[in-house]
Amino acid sequence: MIVVLKPNIAKKEERAVLKEIRKLGYRPHVMRGVERTVIGAIGDERTHQTLETLVSWPQVESVTPIQKRYKLVSRDAHAANSTINVRGNVIGGKKFQVMAGPCSVESEKQLMSTAEAVAKAGATILRGGAFKPRTSPYEFQGLGERGLKLLDKARRETGLAVITELLSEQHAELVAEYADILQIGTRNAQNFQLLIAAAKTGKPVLLKRGLSMRIEEWLLAGEYVLANENCGLMFCERGVRTFETYTRNTLDLSTIPIIKQESHCPIVIDPSQGAGRADLVAAMCKGAVAMGADALLIEVHPNPAEAWSDGAQQVSLEAFRRLMNDLRPFIAAAGRE
Amino acid sequence: MIVVLKPNIAKKEERAVLKEIRKLGYRPHVMRGVERTVIGAIGDERTHQTLETLVSWPQVESVTPIQKRYKLVSRDAHAANSTINVRGNVIGGKKFQVMAGPCSVESEKQLMSTAEAVAKAGATILRGGAFKPRTSPYEFQGLGERGLKLLDKARRETGLAVITELLSEQHAELVAEYADILQIGTRNAQNFQLLIAAAKTGKPVLLKRGLSMRIEEWLLAGEYVLANENCGLMFCERGVRTFETYTRNTLDLSTIPIIKQESHCPIVIDPSQGAGRADLVAAMCKGAVAMGADALLIEVHPNPAEAWSDGAQQVSLEAFRRLMNDLRPFIAAAGRE
Amino acid sequence: MIVVLKPNIAKKEERAVLKEIRKLGYRPHVMRGVERTVIGAIGDERTHQTLETLVSWPQVESVTPIQKRYKLVSRDAHAANSTINVRGNVIGGKKFQVMAGPCSVESEKQLMSTAEAVAKAGATILRGGAFKPRTSPYEFQGLGERGLKLLDKARRETGLAVITELLSEQHAELVAEYADILQIGTRNAQNFQLLIAAAKTGKPVLLKRGLSMRIEEWLLAGEYVLANENCGLMFCERGVRTFETYTRNTLDLSTIPIIKQESHCPIVIDPSQGAGRADLVAAMCKGAVAMGADALLIEVHPNPAEAWSDGAQQVSLEAFRRLMNDLRPFIAAAGRE
Amino acid sequence: MIVVLKPNIAKKEERAVLKEIRKLGYRPHVMRGVERTVIGAIGDERTHQTLETLVSWPQVESVTPIQKRYKLVSRDAHAANSTINVRGNVIGGKKFQVMAGPCSVESEKQLMSTAEAVAKAGATILRGGAFKPRTSPYEFQGLGERGLKLLDKARRETGLAVITELLSEQHAELVAEYADILQIGTRNAQNFQLLIAAAKTGKPVLLKRGLSMRIEEWLLAGEYVLANENCGLMFCERGVRTFETYTRNTLDLSTIPIIKQESHCPIVIDPSQGAGRADLVAAMCKGAVAMGADALLIEVHPNPAEAWSDGAQQVSLEAFRRLMNDLRPFIAAAGRE
Repeated sequence: MIVVLKPNIAKKEERAVLKEIRKLGYRPHVMRGVERTVIGAIGDERTHQTLETLVSWPQVESVTPIQKRYKLVSRDAHAANSTINVRGNVIGGKKFQVMAGPCSVESEKQLMSTAEAVAKAGATILRGGAFKPRTSPYEFQGLGERGLKLLDKARRETGLAVITELLSEQHAELVAEYADILQIGTRNAQNFQLLIAAAKTGKPVLLKRGLSMRIEEWLLAGEYVLANENCGLMFCERGVRTFETYTRNTLDLSTIPIIKQESHCPIVIDPSQGAGRADLVAAMCKGAVAMGADALLIEVHPNPAEAWSDGAQQVSLEAFRRLMNDLRPFIAAAGRE
Repeated sequence: MIVVLKPNIAKKEERAVLKEIRKLGYRPHVMRGVERTVIGAIGDERTHQTLETLVSWPQVESVTPIQKRYKLVSRDAHAANSTINVRGNVIGGKKFQVMAGPCSVESEKQLMSTAEAVAKAGATILRGGAFKPRTSPYEFQGLGERGLKLLDKARRETGLAVITELLSEQHAELVAEYADILQIGTRNAQNFQLLIAAAKTGKPVLLKRGLSMRIEEWLLAGEYVLANENCGLMFCERGVRTFETYTRNTLDLSTIPIIKQESHCPIVIDPSQGAGRADLVAAMCKGAVAMGADALLIEVHPNPAEAWSDGAQQVSLEAFRRLMNDLRPFIAAAGRE
Repeated sequence: MIVVLKPNIAKKEERAVLKEIRKLGYRPHVMRGVERTVIGAIGDERTHQTLETLVSWPQVESVTPIQKRYKLVSRDAHAANSTINVRGNVIGGKKFQVMAGPCSVESEKQLMSTAEAVAKAGATILRGGAFKPRTSPYEFQGLGERGLKLLDKARRETGLAVITELLSEQHAELVAEYADILQIGTRNAQNFQLLIAAAKTGKPVLLKRGLSMRIEEWLLAGEYVLANENCGLMFCERGVRTFETYTRNTLDLSTIPIIKQESHCPIVIDPSQGAGRADLVAAMCKGAVAMGADALLIEVHPNPAEAWSDGAQQVSLEAFRRLMNDLRPFIAAAGRE
Repeated sequence: MIVVLKPNIAKKEERAVLKEIRKLGYRPHVMRGVERTVIGAIGDERTHQTLETLVSWPQVESVTPIQKRYKLVSRDAHAANSTINVRGNVIGGKKFQVMAGPCSVESEKQLMSTAEAVAKAGATILRGGAFKPRTSPYEFQGLGERGLKLLDKARRETGLAVITELLSEQHAELVAEYADILQIGTRNAQNFQLLIAAAKTGKPVLLKRGLSMRIEEWLLAGEYVLANENCGLMFCERGVRTFETYTRNTLDLSTIPIIKQESHCPIVIDPSQGAGRADLVAAMCKGAVAMGADALLIEVHPNPAEAWSDGAQQVSLEAFRRLMNDLRPFIAAAGRE
């Protein structure tokens, strides 16, 4: 920690700060600057959080941490890229992966037709919500267990692996029974109890970025998964909330090189939530591929205009097929397969 | 819903939209403007959400809802102010209420000394976290049930009512056994399963605004509480996330007149989280009182610099006493007691 | 500056950093921490900006400034509150000041009726835009010099001082001839050439906060005024841009205690732009007064629904009269006149 | 415009609204919905702005514009892509263009070595600031006219065209004499007087997006250029301000497909300002190319660590050469040259 004192502080007040720093287990190191005195407090910050509270002392101007707060998700902890094997499909490796499917599982017919089409177009993982978090209690909340069973059926018929959202600790076992990857949604990105419950199932966890989550907070939320002995963590950028109104969210593609630099875990991009507009999905996918993403998570529906949730951002089966073709040269340019 | 068509659309494409509108249960009403054709779709939007997906049709430029999506929290549903009686302390009535106490319950001594001091200074409700949501898994996570028992003890000794945070569905019964008000934290503001679990305990619920939650989403999250037959809902503004760095969050005091206008539920202001700086708390409180808040939620600690969490934003017992005195003329000016 | 090196850096790379620090005129001070080495670079940061570029070196993790970058606007430079005397009305002193008037000067009748009404209700300064910055080139751009002449006439007839916006360097002399205070609008808050031109007229300058300006940037923009030998600077908060849609902007009232703490210059609140809704203005004004603002800047129009700009946020003459009455007890509670 | 009335409004109040709508030159069209009455006001909104002020009437709930407010920048006005020919280099055509050079012109040696290196690597346009807008008045403000003369020299020696920033109306003629493209910086993006002055020089104008500018506002600011009879407008995305701290700004690459959809003008991406970190520039460039940008604007410096401004975001000559090579397959994949 770096503790900066206010200008013109009495010696006595400085000594009080030094005493407190020692009391909290750090070794203080004083530097006298032109206007201000700066104290370096040497010690392991991850286990000495309380030092930050010195900022409430009247003689202290600022307290700045030096160490990064995450350990297990950090590239320092694991220099190579982590890979996650999901029914033979490796996420984070040389092969680029595509997860696709409807926002919500609505019916057997809707799901099967989508699953077959996305498998044929080259996707390897099927997405589909059985439990849906909805802004309003009056909106469709998902088919629940029946939706999970339909996902299971689609898996058996197409060979696709399955990713679906977990939104209650109480469903963790149930959802893990059917899913190959558990998705933690943006509104639960800092629901730490849910992260722990997901981690404990042992299934890989895809952690979406919260609506206005700083990258550091996202890495720390991921730390909850790894610290609970689940190493199948992947991050998923899906846009952050800004003032812009032409898009539902602002997809922050800079997260791709940053997550690659800070962490060993794979990074997945969700352009459907990111833009909230089907007509922008193709361009977003190209950018994500070019920038080094490991996988895409795309909403696909046989008839978007009749979808029970988020129709505006789902692409049709035909548009998905075209998209997969259009992505090929970019996947090659990015050195992926 | 108002459906705007793109300019120069063929008759056939317009007819397809009209047909779909009818199919979804609305009555279409066509208006031809200077450049664009606008269709009013008449019907109850709260039960016909899917119309919004028309925006994915190529001939449609925009779809705008007309009705407000919340019902039970709305002032339309209940013209008078709702009041919530917590052990004789009425929130939302003429008397201004103050909830105060430490960020985390740390020890019997810390809690009791704080409880006595805040009661003496005029607070009527004791706050204190027993289960703490922490950004990092390596930070102090709260005393758990032992913390709840200490809150119970403080209640018995001081007569203060107790508010504490609920952060897992699985703790709902346990926390409700000890608490008079359940607090839903900012990171769980759209954890709908938790909101339902909290509502079902029957205890009053204080719903903090999410980090980047629009007011409409906040009202809709509150709708989950009322729709689960719990009418003890109050909203709590605690700042939103912006680009500003001098404060931890930007406290949005405009929520006071807006919540009063849109809803019948009480509005509480949390200036401690809002600013993240103890030295700004007093000014924030004065503003909140003047603007018509029903209550304050203030973090108070006997020794902020040694707090186990969020020390920078907790005020000392002495500062709290002074603050309560300084607020008096503003409470009177606002026509409260 | 505090320079943090990456973990496990070779001695040679550390020496290169130390050499560069010395070359740039600082004295380095090395602290070896648990994982990282930290170097304090001692010297006057305001004249040695380039050190920050060390962050582009591969062995450097971060570079953090210690000193505040503003001097003349700082409370360190002038411990007492600055006051600005505008035709006998002192801003920043014990008397609370109200500036009021239409968004745009539209006609003699509109301006005179407003000026008389606001003067009678207790305002001391008349606002009114003669040159208007408009988002679209097709919107009303102001009456220009004719508007200035009408403001002059209103001043002569009512005794009110006049504040009006300056939006082009080329108008600086002209506008200064008529205005008692020059207003720099939110879109020009970092138009430094305009700030310099305004400062050089010698007239007091009211500097609105930019749409997404950090407080530090605002103080630094103000520094341009003081550094050009004009000490009549006041800051004006008018809301920042966020994701919220119920209000046009989010009025950040925490700027009041912060500006008071960091600077000696007066702080003015503009609730009309801040909310963008006339129905919220009264509550915002009460909050601003309670929190210690020095003045208010309120948009008032004889017939808001027929205003040529920003009608939604202007209050009527009658509403303004009521507002001035309602503010009285809060002004008294805040210890002002 | 769509005017929504509040529920349960008296007939008389509705009639008053209808009368006002007619008075303002629109033709009203009434639709009675389930709960609310909606009035479509038919007429040209771009010339009837004042209708929006109806929202200040007590019986009106909302007023929503239907038409887009921009005309000349719109794709409706010019269906094909506009191209801008700058000394034989066509921006907006099949050939992908790269503008590169230092943040600030510092010296002849610095500029010439950079110009030669970027030309050799394949850039066609040289960037370099002669007049610099700086957050603090104590920072380097640019070499001024001497910088312009150096740019001119570099142009003569390398054949590169020149882009440089215009930051004062009073410099418009001077800067236009030396520059091939005038850059309007982010802090001046809504300095409409400067936009008009730039347009009137007849030189092409590169308009950076403001720090928190909505895309609609950006298009409208561009409208000021076209409405002043200059058709050489290009838009430049350079990141918006968010809460994220790992990057200086959040580069919003979704602007590429959106600007292409809404407008005929070219779109340029500035990854240097966008990220504020040289180590992210290469990934950002790849994304921009893949998503369909027409050109890049990249900060390059022979020795970033000794740059006089923004060293952290400038790439070295060697890094730039590598970047240009790495981009080739993505440019090909995007169907450009």
